[in-house]
Amino acid sequence: MAYAGYSCLKIRLDRGVLFVTIDHPPINLFDLPLMQEIDRLGREIELDDNVSVVVFDSANPDFFIAHADVNLILQLPAVAPPKADSLKFFHAMVDRFRTMPKVSIAKIEGRALLSQPEVAIGIIPGGSGTQRLPRLMGRSRALEVVLGCDDFPADLAERYGYINRALPPDELGPFVEQLAYRIAGFSPEAIALAKASIDCADLPTMEGLLEEAHFFDLAVATQAARKRLRKFLELGGQTHEVELDLRPLADQLTE
Amino acid sequence: MAYAGYSCLKIRLDRGVLFVTIDHPPINLFDLPLMQEIDRLGREIELDDNVSVVVFDSANPDFFIAHADVNLILQLPAVAPPKADSLKFFHAMVDRFRTMPKVSIAKIEGRALLSQPEVAIGIIPGGSGTQRLPRLMGRSRALEVVLGCDDFPADLAERYGYINRALPPDELGPFVEQLAYRIAGFSPEAIALAKASIDCADLPTMEGLLEEAHFFDLAVATQAARKRLRKFLELGGQTHEVELDLRPLADQLTE
Amino acid sequence: MAYAGYSCLKIRLDRGVLFVTIDHPPINLFDLPLMQEIDRLGREIELDDNVSVVVFDSANPDFFIAHADVNLILQLPAVAPPKADSLKFFHAMVDRFRTMPKVSIAKIEGRALLSQPEVAIGIIPGGSGTQRLPRLMGRSRALEVVLGCDDFPADLAERYGYINRALPPDELGPFVEQLAYRIAGFSPEAIALAKASIDCADLPTMEGLLEEAHFFDLAVATQAARKRLRKFLELGGQTHEVELDLRPLADQLTE
Repeated sequence: MAYAGYSCLKIRLDRGVLFVTIDHPPINLFDLPLMQEIDRLGREIELDDNVSVVVFDSANPDFFIAHADVNLILQLPAVAPPKADSLKFFHAMVDRFRTMPKVSIAKIEGRALLSQPEVAIGIIPGGSGTQRLPRLMGRSRALEVVLGCDDFPADLAERYGYINRALPPDELGPFVEQLAYRIAGFSPEAIALAKASIDCADLPTMEGLLEEAHFFDLAVATQAARKRLRKFLELGGQTHEVELDLRPLADQLTE
Repeated sequence: MAYAGYSCLKIRLDRGVLFVTIDHPPINLFDLPLMQEIDRLGREIELDDNVSVVVFDSANPDFFIAHADVNLILQLPAVAPPKADSLKFFHAMVDRFRTMPKVSIAKIEGRALLSQPEVAIGIIPGGSGTQRLPRLMGRSRALEVVLGCDDFPADLAERYGYINRALPPDELGPFVEQLAYRIAGFSPEAIALAKASIDCADLPTMEGLLEEAHFFDLAVATQAARKRLRKFLELGGQTHEVELDLRPLADQLTE
Repeated sequence: MAYAGYSCLKIRLDRGVLFVTIDHPPINLFDLPLMQEIDRLGREIELDDNVSVVVFDSANPDFFIAHADVNLILQLPAVAPPKADSLKFFHAMVDRFRTMPKVSIAKIEGRALLSQPEVAIGIIPGGSGTQRLPRLMGRSRALEVVLGCDDFPADLAERYGYINRALPPDELGPFVEQLAYRIAGFSPEAIALAKASIDCADLPTMEGLLEEAHFFDLAVATQAARKRLRKFLELGGQTHEVELDLRPLADQLTE
């Protein structure tokens, strides 16, 4: 049975959406047991055609994930090893979610403070924060977040681009569910190709455009696309009335 | 006569600004006739020294451009061709506006909803959306826009960086006109060099700085620059009083 | 004696923070004397282990720095030299602050208007603006700022990402001081490694992650980190109560 035998995670699969609740008292410390389960989870999801979207939340209203276990960090070598040429365990675990052909959504509720406290304890963000944050919020704000080591409330985090959206408590759940199920209704090939193409925005523009063109050609060639494109026309796509609000039509396409 | 013989576009040139109104009923569908005219327009503008700024708007209050014609997409090969090493027709048409030494402004009015509906119909954005959006709004929000396929109202689109500004209806027209005429009053060489330099921000920082330094040297060497720099000093530039508000002086420089 | 003999700058070092006030009447023109002092200052700071943070402000409520001296620009060659393969004086001076293992904060007060007026006088931003701005605010907004040459009030500048934060006058000073002293209390090695890692976000993601992993290993191997990590655990880190608000603990770590 899939997704069985996890002790730090509660997992439920429903219509293409895997709901993963982190439940590792008392503070969802990112310790070895939790890391091993997140690693195993990533490997399972990566190979599971029934999952298009993963939604992470926390069973603990005070903590989403506290931080990495400092005892583990203290066990790392006191002399730095040479620079590696492939990702080691921790990076590989988190980057698998970035590169897999499925989407992850973090639903952060409760005490919604975000921060990068690493520099305050003498280290640096080592879970990809120094790479993700400058790309999300620009270098100047990333420097403030990473070097300032201060808490960011949700509304400021949204303005900085740290998170996509800061929503009122009663809107967060419905928003995430609606988005997750909506995406899960789309063609898995289109999701995979769109995500792969977006990740080519790392490249110089001209190279990225050539990648996009190829991913577009691959998407157009799928059976899912041809079926949906034809249905789109049959259902009145490209007429004035239907185009005024494409959402109902999009919902019908996913049926 | 320039800009004649277009049937989907109404075109008017005034003091360096080319106003292009898309008028292709019933929904400004991006079909072959419209694509061919946009392609031809780009080629004309690129070579026209009288144009510094292009302003696009729509004659249809419900649609700026609906989307690409699905019938055209259905005619694309059912087996994806190999990855190309140069831009094909569609990308070349849109990217010409990015790389030409002139500025484009889209004035989007009326039913102001933005979205990327492609994934909902089984394909992916193929007009450069997967490359532009992550650079404008960061990867996480670009994934939400492209995979969520939902409508974005203007104020949210502004917060995400999808658009530069969401303005009230009565302010949009004057803002765009003022900006367009203002830019059109500046030296075409400076516009071209500044735009080229900004597009080098695609490169690693150090390479980008070397490009900027060279573009700066080229700008300084133009007659337009030397004339304006001298006039700037003559008109009181670098004095306390004039520097407090440089806008009137900037306006005099462009005369 | 360090930081002596400056005539355009007032300099004060306090607990790791170097406060630099630009005082070059009448308009803080970026002329040769000011450039030479900023250049000299950068070289001094770079080598000074007692400085972790540099805070720039202005003695003039009307001007932070007006702009580069147009007389200097007019002395540049009327024929552009070939593209250089290393940074020349001006770029080297400003980029030293980007690459040094210390943080710079600009505290801009008084008449808070930001703009890039260069294109209006026929040249282009040559102090790295065409490289920094697209990375901070995205290409479309950078084009508007650089080609529009218009003033940006503080709140709009914040929305665009031109500045980190627009704060009310009475909050700006305390905010900057608190942030500067807070960072200055952290381990200089961690500051240096975190900043270096953030600047690798220029690289493709995978390369950036490998750099981050190595910088993390280097940070973990420092005495400062091992001492702070152990103290973090001794002071109750990783317990529910202490983790609810890590700021007091972070303050104790820096003592």
